[in-house]
Amino acid sequence: MGRPPSPLLSADGIAAAAMDLVTSTGEFTIPQLARRLGVSPSSLYNHVSGREQIVELLRELAMSEVDLPSDDPGRPWAETIADILRSYRGSYVRYPKLIPLLTAHAVNSTHALTMYDALATTLARAGFTPADTLRAITLMDCFVLGSALDAAAPAEPWDNGADVGPELAAALATGTPKPIRADDAFEFGLAVLLRGLDDFRATDAARSHDRITNHPPS
Amino acid sequence: MGRPPSPLLSADGIAAAAMDLVTSTGEFTIPQLARRLGVSPSSLYNHVSGREQIVELLRELAMSEVDLPSDDPGRPWAETIADILRSYRGSYVRYPKLIPLLTAHAVNSTHALTMYDALATTLARAGFTPADTLRAITLMDCFVLGSALDAAAPAEPWDNGADVGPELAAALATGTPKPIRADDAFEFGLAVLLRGLDDFRATDAARSHDRITNHPPS
Repeated sequence: MGRPPSPLLSADGIAAAAMDLVTSTGEFTIPQLARRLGVSPSSLYNHVSGREQIVELLRELAMSEVDLPSDDPGRPWAETIADILRSYRGSYVRYPKLIPLLTAHAVNSTHALTMYDALATTLARAGFTPADTLRAITLMDCFVLGSALDAAAPAEPWDNGADVGPELAAALATGTPKPIRADDAFEFGLAVLLRGLDDFRATDAARSHDRITNHPPS
Repeated sequence: MGRPPSPLLSADGIAAAAMDLVTSTGEFTIPQLARRLGVSPSSLYNHVSGREQIVELLRELAMSEVDLPSDDPGRPWAETIADILRSYRGSYVRYPKLIPLLTAHAVNSTHALTMYDALATTLARAGFTPADTLRAITLMDCFVLGSALDAAAPAEPWDNGADVGPELAAALATGTPKPIRADDAFEFGLAVLLRGLDDFRATDAARSHDRITNHPPS
């Protein structure tokens, strides 16, 4: 029988090998991937169109545990958003090293687009303008990805021996062990963010009402 | 004269070489650094105590442009925080690849601790408890580092050809070119976050006032 001329390759196998490389080194290149899989670089192109497609496969892996709540127009918008963001963070916490690689590429994966669609639908229904919907989604993205990095950070964010002032020392002394501390900070941040958005929405709606009242269309 | 036995090394030169490696590959190892500098790994230890110290030197570089406002107790706390966070983001935007490496290590650099001290002092003075001060600082860290990654992200966050729903399509259509879009989203996020924190602070103060009023110490 002899050895087959090249091992069995698949897009999933290539994505798994790329994830291993990113997890250990923060990056991957096509030649590294080929070496790891024991094949020539050109044989990878029988299964994937190139680096961009591999990045999207990694994004699908990172988002694979994002679980979207069923779309319920009767539910308060902030509850729906909170559910989505908790799930989004929980999925990315597993792959912190992947985050800068994914943010450096335009999104084109089904799981990701489905989630962004759910955020946009919920925000639009809550009364945010399209421009504020884009801004709010960007804010959520920044917060969730930063929180996923924070969850992967060391148990003690500051060196014990570090020379800090009394206010920072008092704050640090309240820190509970990880992962509780990271989860607690995420829930606090989520509450602050949703409260700020709701407040912003109310003020903005009031402002645009004023605009209409004070300057009625002629 | 001949060639000296090893090139002139310094902690700064080692940090610069490590930054080059992180910028191109997302990581650095001591053997890679030594190879790049044309010295043996052991000779690096004449200048730095090890990997941890190099990471802190990279953090100092990343924070080198953080400019703290002078401490003014009469100024609204949210303005002071906003100035600090704008400067923090501006400094990190230059080194997005460094972010996961830095978040994976406990902070022990002077620039960083000075900034966290300024945040803690301002929040404590504004009436946040030590526990909420820690939570608020964590939220700010997550938001700023996520925003720095967003600023380094591609001009079009979503593939043009991607199949998206009408609400997301309408939101995306409002996107201005980069870097204006990223800066605009950061300012929106900053305003939302500070409004949410202020609202939280007011409610929390009211709640603890209620607690005191309803349950006076016996």
